[in-house]
Amino acid sequence: MGVNREKSITFAKENRSGFLDELKELLRIPSISTDPAFEKDIRRAAEWLRTKLDRIGMVNVQIMATKGHPVVYGENLNAGVDAPTMMVYGHYDVQPADPVELWESGAFEPEERNGNLYARGSSDMKGQVMASIFAIEAVMSQGALPYNIKFMLEGEEEHTSPNLEPFMKEHKDLLACDFILNPDAGMFAADIPTITYSLRGICSFEVHVQGPTQDLHSGMHGGAVRNPANELARLIGGMHDEEWKVTLKGFYDRVRIIDDKERAELARLPLDEDAILREIGAPKFWGEPGYTYLEKVGTRPTLDVNGIISGYNGEGMKTVLPSKATAKITTRLVADQEPDEVYEGLKMYMEENADASVTWTVNYLQGNKASMSNRDSDEIQAMSKALESVWGMRPVFNPGGGTIPAVGYMKEVLGAESVLTGFSRPDDNIHSPNEKLHLSTWYKGIDSLIHFLENLKEIHG
Amino acid sequence: MGVNREKSITFAKENRSGFLDELKELLRIPSISTDPAFEKDIRRAAEWLRTKLDRIGMVNVQIMATKGHPVVYGENLNAGVDAPTMMVYGHYDVQPADPVELWESGAFEPEERNGNLYARGSSDMKGQVMASIFAIEAVMSQGALPYNIKFMLEGEEEHTSPNLEPFMKEHKDLLACDFILNPDAGMFAADIPTITYSLRGICSFEVHVQGPTQDLHSGMHGGAVRNPANELARLIGGMHDEEWKVTLKGFYDRVRIIDDKERAELARLPLDEDAILREIGAPKFWGEPGYTYLEKVGTRPTLDVNGIISGYNGEGMKTVLPSKATAKITTRLVADQEPDEVYEGLKMYMEENADASVTWTVNYLQGNKASMSNRDSDEIQAMSKALESVWGMRPVFNPGGGTIPAVGYMKEVLGAESVLTGFSRPDDNIHSPNEKLHLSTWYKGIDSLIHFLENLKEIHG
Repeated sequence: MGVNREKSITFAKENRSGFLDELKELLRIPSISTDPAFEKDIRRAAEWLRTKLDRIGMVNVQIMATKGHPVVYGENLNAGVDAPTMMVYGHYDVQPADPVELWESGAFEPEERNGNLYARGSSDMKGQVMASIFAIEAVMSQGALPYNIKFMLEGEEEHTSPNLEPFMKEHKDLLACDFILNPDAGMFAADIPTITYSLRGICSFEVHVQGPTQDLHSGMHGGAVRNPANELARLIGGMHDEEWKVTLKGFYDRVRIIDDKERAELARLPLDEDAILREIGAPKFWGEPGYTYLEKVGTRPTLDVNGIISGYNGEGMKTVLPSKATAKITTRLVADQEPDEVYEGLKMYMEENADASVTWTVNYLQGNKASMSNRDSDEIQAMSKALESVWGMRPVFNPGGGTIPAVGYMKEVLGAESVLTGFSRPDDNIHSPNEKLHLSTWYKGIDSLIHFLENLKEIHG
Repeated sequence: MGVNREKSITFAKENRSGFLDELKELLRIPSISTDPAFEKDIRRAAEWLRTKLDRIGMVNVQIMATKGHPVVYGENLNAGVDAPTMMVYGHYDVQPADPVELWESGAFEPEERNGNLYARGSSDMKGQVMASIFAIEAVMSQGALPYNIKFMLEGEEEHTSPNLEPFMKEHKDLLACDFILNPDAGMFAADIPTITYSLRGICSFEVHVQGPTQDLHSGMHGGAVRNPANELARLIGGMHDEEWKVTLKGFYDRVRIIDDKERAELARLPLDEDAILREIGAPKFWGEPGYTYLEKVGTRPTLDVNGIISGYNGEGMKTVLPSKATAKITTRLVADQEPDEVYEGLKMYMEENADASVTWTVNYLQGNKASMSNRDSDEIQAMSKALESVWGMRPVFNPGGGTIPAVGYMKEVLGAESVLTGFSRPDDNIHSPNEKLHLSTWYKGIDSLIHFLENLKEIHG
């Protein structure tokens, strides 16, 4: 191990307790992006990160406006115009905390229990953003870097990054870079270092069905007036066939069918389906026949209801025939599905299937394509080596089931591919109550990122 | 017109403004039975009625405990043990006011506008209870009656009267009566006096579908873990076939099929389907082919979702795979369906159709049979004449689409049939925002009930 590399690692080890305190500070800010009520907290989180980037030696640090929540930008271009530039991408916003009653400690009151740090955003992804910042802080503490660094930390990822693409187009020159470090992709399993080579895309919709203009008495009109809750339920039910395939027209037309080679590679990933099922707590897995769990979540598209509401849901009964029903629906996409075509398919489905006794609207909230990275790039190889140095095993290459719209935008607008990794474990309850960060994994993550930065020094030195 | 009859009518006319003020007092009490938060108001409404019954000359007036909300009882047995006894049935509880934002004036702040009195419960049925009380007050102001009167005013009708049957069984002797006046059945149309000869029954359920033990990230697990909201929607969708018949096993086995004669009678009822549709505001009617609107709501059973909820329904999106989904479902029953068999049918449906990747429960909240009255009884004929005296037309005989569980209980426990009428108009928005009472109709209603009481005097005098 080189002297600097060793010193950087030592610096990080010696500063662990300070790093943890700083992370807790950031976690106390409830920067929920999807709910306008938390706009001030979003701003506070951005301010906090601006101060931190300043302190680790970034310059031109600024909170940049978008049409939604701001981006925190900072750069260190001391390596000069001929040196390569790495962009660190991250997001400082978090999911809502509800159902809040299921949290064992406050979602925004970070608490250490059994080697974990519990808080909304601890794993997804304030912990990962801070690991990257601390790694850069550690490496820069040992001297100048032979490559430039830029930070682009957004505040709308949990809200599907609706304003990031126009923001990047507007600031294309400022954001120019050669590759991107994105630590938002998580680990395939506890203690399995992971590089994510693909991500699913997403289309999100709100489907609204309207029956009568106001709620009716179900006795007076029931049987003669269509109930929009029944109708919406029927329509959602019909969006899958008996083999659990999505029935929207053209939905699978562009789907890359997994071949035997990819299938064999995926089969080599260590996966204990029984353990996953136990963790999830469902009676059994579900989905398209003929695909493994990993193939389903990594290579197949989906259609899920994220929320549905109609009528009276308080205590007791209200014998109402509701006037309206609404569902939030997302489809996860795989390469090479086109979001706009999925939207067209959903509209066509509604046109062909909704009963004429109701009216409906489909609100197209967001569409993002799936993405795939080149596993043989220098940067992905540098990350692979770094993870092996810390974990003592070669990382697995995982097809990610989630969506990071930013990854697609950065590829399209900046022409830069992402090195996707992260130190979020599958049992971290991200997007759920009791989200947590496994601390020893996090410390290993910081070390891994230091090795990555040192490996890049060797490549670009 | 007899002298007493005339004096009673005059008494009522002279006291209209006082009657209205008293009704408003009662309407200001938000006696919502389905929500435990309003328990004190339920009590206040009961106290208010106790005082009123006292004042009009009822004795043994008391607020009687049930396992739920209390019953207000009062009697006047001056006619003696050999005279017949009429029981006045009513309910002083009301539906919840939500969605409160759609009310033009406060749901519990009665306001007169354009000849209507707006308030929750004005039409259903505090207005009807008070019309009965005022009519009795008017008739008794002219001297003793040749028949006995009992009042049984319950506080759980909007909550499907879960405790009324055991209450009546417990107090069977106190409640003994020969027939029942029940003014909760409403008018077939504005200005059409109506006697309701049948009522639909009801079964109400809560269906709960559980997938994973906690909310999951729809990207991490979507496609491999069954989404309980999708599953519940699919199950609800399958509860009707393509002809909109309910698919629960045995559901139609006991349904009395309407014959040509009944069909011809129903066809004579004045009904402007276009006007109803305009009022409802749906694009078109819906339901089983081959039945008219009136046949559907009066003689056919239904299955309606009264409420459904799952996942995230706040602002924006949350890409969650929810852990659970719940629907409140009621079926309206017709003679001679058995509620318990419907419950068995629903359970069997769930057993046969729910996917093994979720668990489910069906909570059977309430079951009430449909009821039918003998149109040729003295009392129904007395009511028919009374309505004709005031409206100048013979009343229509209507098959009611709603449910009054009390009617069935009183038939079973007390052996007494109900004379079902009422002065609630179809456009009164009962169970909806902006519920109202049409005041001139209400005054005619009071007069009609006076004539009914006077007619009974002639029969039983």
